[in-house]
Amino acid sequence: MLTLDFHPTGRHFLQIPGPSPVPDRILRAMSLPTIDHRGPEFGALGLRVLKGIKQVFQTQHPVVIYPASGTGAWEAALANTMSPGDHVLMYETGHFASLWKKMATRLGLEAEFLAYRGGDDRMPEAASWRRGVQADLIEERLRADRQHSIKAVCVVHNETSTGATSDILAVRRAIDAAKHPALLMVDSISGLACADYRHDEWGVDVTISGSQKGLMLPPGISFNAVSPKALEASRSAKLPKAFWAWDEIVEMNQGGYWPYTPNTNLLYGLAEACDMLLAAEHGGLAGAFARHGRWGEGVRAAVRAWGLDIQCADPAVYSPVLTGVMMPDGVDADAVRKIVYERFDCSLGTGLGKVKGRMFRIGHLGDCNDLTLMAALAGCEMGLKLAGVKLAGSGVQAAMEFFASQPAPKAA
Amino acid sequence: MLTLDFHPTGRHFLQIPGPSPVPDRILRAMSLPTIDHRGPEFGALGLRVLKGIKQVFQTQHPVVIYPASGTGAWEAALANTMSPGDHVLMYETGHFASLWKKMATRLGLEAEFLAYRGGDDRMPEAASWRRGVQADLIEERLRADRQHSIKAVCVVHNETSTGATSDILAVRRAIDAAKHPALLMVDSISGLACADYRHDEWGVDVTISGSQKGLMLPPGISFNAVSPKALEASRSAKLPKAFWAWDEIVEMNQGGYWPYTPNTNLLYGLAEACDMLLAAEHGGLAGAFARHGRWGEGVRAAVRAWGLDIQCADPAVYSPVLTGVMMPDGVDADAVRKIVYERFDCSLGTGLGKVKGRMFRIGHLGDCNDLTLMAALAGCEMGLKLAGVKLAGSGVQAAMEFFASQPAPKAA
Amino acid sequence: MLTLDFHPTGRHFLQIPGPSPVPDRILRAMSLPTIDHRGPEFGALGLRVLKGIKQVFQTQHPVVIYPASGTGAWEAALANTMSPGDHVLMYETGHFASLWKKMATRLGLEAEFLAYRGGDDRMPEAASWRRGVQADLIEERLRADRQHSIKAVCVVHNETSTGATSDILAVRRAIDAAKHPALLMVDSISGLACADYRHDEWGVDVTISGSQKGLMLPPGISFNAVSPKALEASRSAKLPKAFWAWDEIVEMNQGGYWPYTPNTNLLYGLAEACDMLLAAEHGGLAGAFARHGRWGEGVRAAVRAWGLDIQCADPAVYSPVLTGVMMPDGVDADAVRKIVYERFDCSLGTGLGKVKGRMFRIGHLGDCNDLTLMAALAGCEMGLKLAGVKLAGSGVQAAMEFFASQPAPKAA
Amino acid sequence: MLTLDFHPTGRHFLQIPGPSPVPDRILRAMSLPTIDHRGPEFGALGLRVLKGIKQVFQTQHPVVIYPASGTGAWEAALANTMSPGDHVLMYETGHFASLWKKMATRLGLEAEFLAYRGGDDRMPEAASWRRGVQADLIEERLRADRQHSIKAVCVVHNETSTGATSDILAVRRAIDAAKHPALLMVDSISGLACADYRHDEWGVDVTISGSQKGLMLPPGISFNAVSPKALEASRSAKLPKAFWAWDEIVEMNQGGYWPYTPNTNLLYGLAEACDMLLAAEHGGLAGAFARHGRWGEGVRAAVRAWGLDIQCADPAVYSPVLTGVMMPDGVDADAVRKIVYERFDCSLGTGLGKVKGRMFRIGHLGDCNDLTLMAALAGCEMGLKLAGVKLAGSGVQAAMEFFASQPAPKAA
Repeated sequence: MLTLDFHPTGRHFLQIPGPSPVPDRILRAMSLPTIDHRGPEFGALGLRVLKGIKQVFQTQHPVVIYPASGTGAWEAALANTMSPGDHVLMYETGHFASLWKKMATRLGLEAEFLAYRGGDDRMPEAASWRRGVQADLIEERLRADRQHSIKAVCVVHNETSTGATSDILAVRRAIDAAKHPALLMVDSISGLACADYRHDEWGVDVTISGSQKGLMLPPGISFNAVSPKALEASRSAKLPKAFWAWDEIVEMNQGGYWPYTPNTNLLYGLAEACDMLLAAEHGGLAGAFARHGRWGEGVRAAVRAWGLDIQCADPAVYSPVLTGVMMPDGVDADAVRKIVYERFDCSLGTGLGKVKGRMFRIGHLGDCNDLTLMAALAGCEMGLKLAGVKLAGSGVQAAMEFFASQPAPKAA
Repeated sequence: MLTLDFHPTGRHFLQIPGPSPVPDRILRAMSLPTIDHRGPEFGALGLRVLKGIKQVFQTQHPVVIYPASGTGAWEAALANTMSPGDHVLMYETGHFASLWKKMATRLGLEAEFLAYRGGDDRMPEAASWRRGVQADLIEERLRADRQHSIKAVCVVHNETSTGATSDILAVRRAIDAAKHPALLMVDSISGLACADYRHDEWGVDVTISGSQKGLMLPPGISFNAVSPKALEASRSAKLPKAFWAWDEIVEMNQGGYWPYTPNTNLLYGLAEACDMLLAAEHGGLAGAFARHGRWGEGVRAAVRAWGLDIQCADPAVYSPVLTGVMMPDGVDADAVRKIVYERFDCSLGTGLGKVKGRMFRIGHLGDCNDLTLMAALAGCEMGLKLAGVKLAGSGVQAAMEFFASQPAPKAA
Repeated sequence: MLTLDFHPTGRHFLQIPGPSPVPDRILRAMSLPTIDHRGPEFGALGLRVLKGIKQVFQTQHPVVIYPASGTGAWEAALANTMSPGDHVLMYETGHFASLWKKMATRLGLEAEFLAYRGGDDRMPEAASWRRGVQADLIEERLRADRQHSIKAVCVVHNETSTGATSDILAVRRAIDAAKHPALLMVDSISGLACADYRHDEWGVDVTISGSQKGLMLPPGISFNAVSPKALEASRSAKLPKAFWAWDEIVEMNQGGYWPYTPNTNLLYGLAEACDMLLAAEHGGLAGAFARHGRWGEGVRAAVRAWGLDIQCADPAVYSPVLTGVMMPDGVDADAVRKIVYERFDCSLGTGLGKVKGRMFRIGHLGDCNDLTLMAALAGCEMGLKLAGVKLAGSGVQAAMEFFASQPAPKAA
Repeated sequence: MLTLDFHPTGRHFLQIPGPSPVPDRILRAMSLPTIDHRGPEFGALGLRVLKGIKQVFQTQHPVVIYPASGTGAWEAALANTMSPGDHVLMYETGHFASLWKKMATRLGLEAEFLAYRGGDDRMPEAASWRRGVQADLIEERLRADRQHSIKAVCVVHNETSTGATSDILAVRRAIDAAKHPALLMVDSISGLACADYRHDEWGVDVTISGSQKGLMLPPGISFNAVSPKALEASRSAKLPKAFWAWDEIVEMNQGGYWPYTPNTNLLYGLAEACDMLLAAEHGGLAGAFARHGRWGEGVRAAVRAWGLDIQCADPAVYSPVLTGVMMPDGVDADAVRKIVYERFDCSLGTGLGKVKGRMFRIGHLGDCNDLTLMAALAGCEMGLKLAGVKLAGSGVQAAMEFFASQPAPKAA
C-alpha cells in the first residue's frame, strides 16, 4: 500500500506556488466512480464544467479543456494558431516565460524576446525578472513591424518564478495602439482564479491555464480559452496538430463530450472547484481575488520586517499568488529551504533559472487562510535564523499586525 | 450532498483538546468497505487491532474495545466491577472527574470526592482544578477505611478540562502503602498515546480510554484495559451489565470477533492508528510522548510570554496534551475564543464547569506539529489583542525561540 | 498501511443481512474533517440529522441517537423504562428476539417468552422461527395479566435471523384490545428504511434501530425513537442509567448537541443517508420500500425455482430485507456459504442459533439493485451445485424473468 | 457539492471496455496530498512508479509517462520518431486503428492502411474489423518496399472496438523476415495488463498505452515504452516536438522527476496499481492474464448460448479484454444498450464507426470478477429479451456452467 511517510505527524505545509494544496472537498469529488465518457451522465458533467470554467475565465467563448498538464496547453496555443517559421514576440518576465520561448523555438517558430531595459541594483543580470511586462516596449516593437510579420504577442500574466503579475490590459492597448493584427496569447497558469483575469474584456485571443494553482486541483488538466479571432486563425495555421486540435474538441463539447477520453475524475474535481470559487456566500471570484490580495500583503509585510528584499521590484505588479524573497549576499536560499523543510515540515518554492539559490518563493494561492500563512512565515523566520541570516525584525509580528489590523474581506 | 461550508477557504485549525484532527491516512483506512463481522477477514482485523491496542496501553492483559464513546467506557468500568451501593473514592481534578462522579452516583454507587486542600490565589473556588491528584490524600483516606468498604479508587490521568496530568504510579503506591484492596481505575481518555501511560507497570486495574484524542480517530470507540484482579471482581459484581459486560467480549475476542456488531470502519482506523503510533521510524510510543512533551513546552512558553497564567499551577504535572490559559480578571475567555474562531478559523477549547468563561484551552494532541501550533498561537495572540487583552509580550516570539532553540526530538 | 487483501480483484459481494454495503457517497461524507462538537457547525449538523432521522422513523417525537451499536440501543430501551425485576413480555421470532430476551434477563428483568404454538413440518423445533409475531397470543396473555404486572411488550419487527417481518400494527391493536398499559417496544434494527415502519401511527413507545442495515452506514450509531408515554415512564424507572439516559440527551438535542462526545463522522454519514433515503427524485421512503419489496420477490422467485424452502413459512410476513434459504436434509448450509465465499467472492449470512447449518441468508437490503442480486443469486446457484445440492431448476432464470417482467418501481 | 444522481441505489455496473472501474484502493491512493514535484518525496515516488511500470511492460528500457490521455501517447510515438511526410504502414483492425491513421495523416505523415483481404458473411464491409493483424500482409508489403521508404509499422495489439487481440510477435517476425528497418510501434492501450504483452521480448520499438484500462486508473496518464532503436530515431526525427519530447523526460526521470509538472495524484494511483498487478499472492502479471482469459471465455460462452455472433471471427485472437456481440439483422444494438442502462444500471460499449448500431461490447477488463460478469450478462440477457431479440438459449446459464466447471485460476 502506498504511503508518504516522510513526516511523522501533523499536516505538511505546502507553500510552493503550485501545485497548491488540494482541498479535501475536491479530493472527495475526485473519488466519484469513473463513468462511461460516452454516457448521459458524462454529458451532463461536461456541460457543467464547460459552463463553470467559462465563468472563471470571464469569457463567453470556448474554453478547451485538455487531459494534460499546463505545458501541454502552451503547446496547444501555439500549435493551433501558428505555422512553421512564424514569428512570435515574447516577453522575458522570468523562468516560465523563458521556457515558453524555448518551446516555441522547439516547435519551429521564430521567437523573439523583449526584456526590461532598465538596470537593477540587486540583480543586474536578471533585472527583467523583477518586473512585469513593459507594454510600451511591445507597442514600440509592433509599430516597427510594418509588414506584420509578427503573428502573436505572448506574455505571462503571473510569472510564477518571480511574483510579478503583469498588466494584460495594458498589453492589449499597446497592440491596439500599434494597430497590429497579432494575436495576444497569455499564460495565466498561476494567475487564474487568484488574480483578477478577464479574457473577453481584456481582448485576449488565447489564455493558457492549468489546474494545479488557483483552481486547487491536482495537476493534469489544462486550458485554452479561445477568442473567435484565434479560432479563425487556427483554421489556416499549418503546424501539425492532432491531440491539441481545437476543432474537434469545440465541436464535440457542444454536447458535453470530448473526441478522446477525458480525465473524468479530474473533471469531477473541476466541477467542485468551480462551485467553490463561484459560490456567492464566499464572495465569488471577487472574494477569491480579495483574499489572495490580502494574503500577499501580509506576506510582504513580513518580508519587509525581516529586512529582506521582495523579488518583484515594482509594487504596482506585486503578485497575489506568491512572493519571491531575496537572500542577502552569501546566503544560499536552498539551504534555508532545506532547514524549513526538514525541521518544520514546510515546502517553499526554489529559485529557478537565473535566480537559482538567490531567492525562495512563498506560495499564498489556492486553498489558504491567514493562519496557514502565519505557520509558513513562522517556519521561514525560524529557518532563516537557524541558517544564520540576520533579520531586521520579526516578519511574523508584522504579518500578525497586518492580519489583525484590518477586517477580513467579506467571507474571507 | 453534505458539506461544511462555514469557512470559505483553507484548512480549519482544530486546536481543542479533542476530538483531535483525524489524519487523512486514518480517514482513508476508514473508507475500506464494511465487511462481514463474522467472516475470516474480520477475524484477522480483530486480532490485529487487539494486539496493537495492548501495546499502546502497555499491557499484556485484555483490552475491551467498545463500539461506543468514552463516556460509555466510564460506565463499563463501573458496571463490570461494582455492586449497587458500593463505595468508590474519586478525586476532583476537574470537570471530567466531576462528571465521572456524577455518573457513579447515577448508577447507584456511593461516590466520595477528595480534593486538593490548599488554597489558590487566582482561583480559590477551583483550587483542586489547578493541580493533579495528591496521592497522600488518597493514602490517608484508605488507611482510615479499616473495613475496606471502599471498593475502588477512581482518578483521571490527564484532566482534559485543566491540563494537569496526574502521577498514577504515586496513586498505586499510595494504595499499596495503605495495604488497601480497592481496585485502581484510571480515566486516561485524553492521556493515552500522548502522555506516558503504563497499565501493567503502574498496577492499574481498569484503564478507560477513547478514540478521539491521542489515537487520532473520530469519536466512537472506547476502551477498558482490564487487569486479572478486575476481571475477577467482575465475576461477582452485581450492577446489571449486558452491553458493557466484559465476559462475552473477552471470550469472543480470542478469535478476533465480538459478541455483537463492532464498528468495523472505526476499527480500520484503529489498526492504522496503531501502525502510526508504534512505527519504529518515528520513534514509536516514546517518540509520540517526546513530541507531545515538546509541544506542551512550546505552548507554555507562549502563555508565559503573554503574561497570562497557565491553568495548571503545578509544573510537575503540566499536561503534554493541552494547556489551559487563564484570562485576566474581567476578560471573557469565550469572547476571545469567538474572535479566534470567526476571524482566524481556529477552534479553541472552552472553559468547562467551574472555570467557564475564565480560561480557554489549547489542544496540542494527536496529529500535530510545530507549525500547526505556531498557527494556533498566532491566532490566539491576534485574538487576545483584538479582544483588548493587554499582553506582556509576544507568545508567538517565545514559542518560535523555543521550537528553534532545540533539536526536534528524534523523528519529530 | 491497512489493506484487505483477501480477494485478488473486483468488488466483493456483501450479501449478508447487515452490515449492508456502505455507498461511496456515505463513505465520502464520513471523511469530512472531525469538528468541535461544541461549535456552531456541529449544532447545525446535529439539528439536521435529528430532523432527518425523525422522518425516517415517521415520528414527531424525539429520536435519541447513541454513539453505540444496536445492542446498546436494546439496553437503552430497557434501562430507561424498566425497574429491577419488572416483567416484560417478549416474543420468540428468532435469534435476535432470543438475544434481546437474554439481555433483559441479564439486566435483572423477568422476561417471559411467547412463541408460535403450531407445528412445522420442516423445523418442528424452530416453528416459531419461521413466522412473525402472532398478535392474538399477545392479546390473550395481556388479558390474563389482570394486575398489569407486565410493563412492556417487546417484539422484533424484522427478524434478521429468519426473514420474517411482523405486523406491528396488529401488536398495537392487541394491546389496545386487551386494554393493557404495557409499553410497546419494537426492535426495527434491520427493518428501518427497508420495510414500511411508522413509529407514531402504529403507536410504538420505543423503537430501537441501528445504522448498519437500511440506513446504509457502518455500524456504530443506534437509535431509540421515544413516545411521550415512554419518556414519562423513564422518569420513574429505576434501572441504573447514565450513558443511556434519555433525559440529558433529549434536553441537549434541542440545540443540536449531545451531553457527551457524539461520533461526528458517522453523523456526517447519517445526514447523507437521510438525504439519499428521503430524496424525492428516487421516490422517498416509499420508493425505498418498493425497491426492497421487489428485490425480496425476485430472490424468493429464485429460491422457489431451485426447489428449496424459504425459511419464512408465512407469505404474509416475507421480509423485504433478507431471505432465509433452507437446505435439503443432509446439506450443511455453511459448507455452501464457504464455497460461495471462496470461489465467487460473495458473503452470505450464516444460520444462527437453532437453525445453524440448516439455512443461509441472502441479504437484499440497503444499497442494492437488480443486477447485484443477480450476481449474488448466480453465486448461490453455482455454489449450491458445487456443493452437490440437486436443484429443481434455475433460480437465476426465475429471478431474471421476475425482474424483467415488470417495470422497475418509480425511480428504482 | 457534486453528485452523480442518475441511479437511485446500488452500484453501477460499468462494463464498457474502458475506462474500467477504478478500485477503491486506487481511489484512496489518489487522495494522498499533492506534494512538491521538486521535493525528495516526489523523487522517491517517481523512481517507484518508473520501476513498476517497466515490469508491467516487461521491458528494461525507458517508459515515458505523460500527464495526458492515450491519444496523446499516440501522437508522442509519431512525433518523436517521424519526420514530415514520412511513410508509415498501418493496419486496419478497427475503429482505433483508423483513428490512429487519421492522426498520422493530420500530423503530415503518409499513412498507408493494410486490411484483411478475405470476405466476411456477416459484415462484408467490415471484414477487417473482425480479425487481427495478418502478419503475412505486412511482410509482403515490406518486402515490396525495396527503398525502405516505410519508416514504421503501426499496429493495434488489442483493438478495443472489436475484441481482437493481434499477434505482435508475428508482426515482429514479419518485419524481420522482410529484413526491413522500419520501427515497430504498437498500441496496447487496452491490452496492457490484461493480455500478455512483452515489449522487449517481442522486439517492439514503441508501445503506447494508457491508464484507464488494465491499469485500473482513471484516464489521464499515458505511456510510451521506448526501445534503444526508437530513442536513436528520435534524435534525428524532424516533426516538431516539445511537450511530447522524450529526451528531457528520459533525462530527468533518472532522478525520479519530470521536466514539467507531472500529475502527482494519478501517479499515486499508478504506484498502487503496479503493486496490485505485480503482487505475488495474486499470481502477478501471469495471474492477471489468466483471470482475463477466463472471463473472456465465460462471456463468449454466454454469447454462443444466446445464438449471437461474436464480433471477432477468428478464435485465435479472441480478446481477453472485451467481447463484441453482434446483433441479428434489424436489431439496433444501441436500443438494447439503452434498455440495459436504464432498467438495469449497466453500461455497455457502443458500436463504433463502421459497426455503429450493429454490435455492442462487453468489457471484462481491469478490476472485475466472475459475479460482476454474471451480473452484466444477466443485464444483457434481460435487456436483449426486452428489446425483442430471440435468443437461442440462456447465456447466463452457459456462463455459470463455465465458471463453475473449472477451478478458478490461482488466486483468481
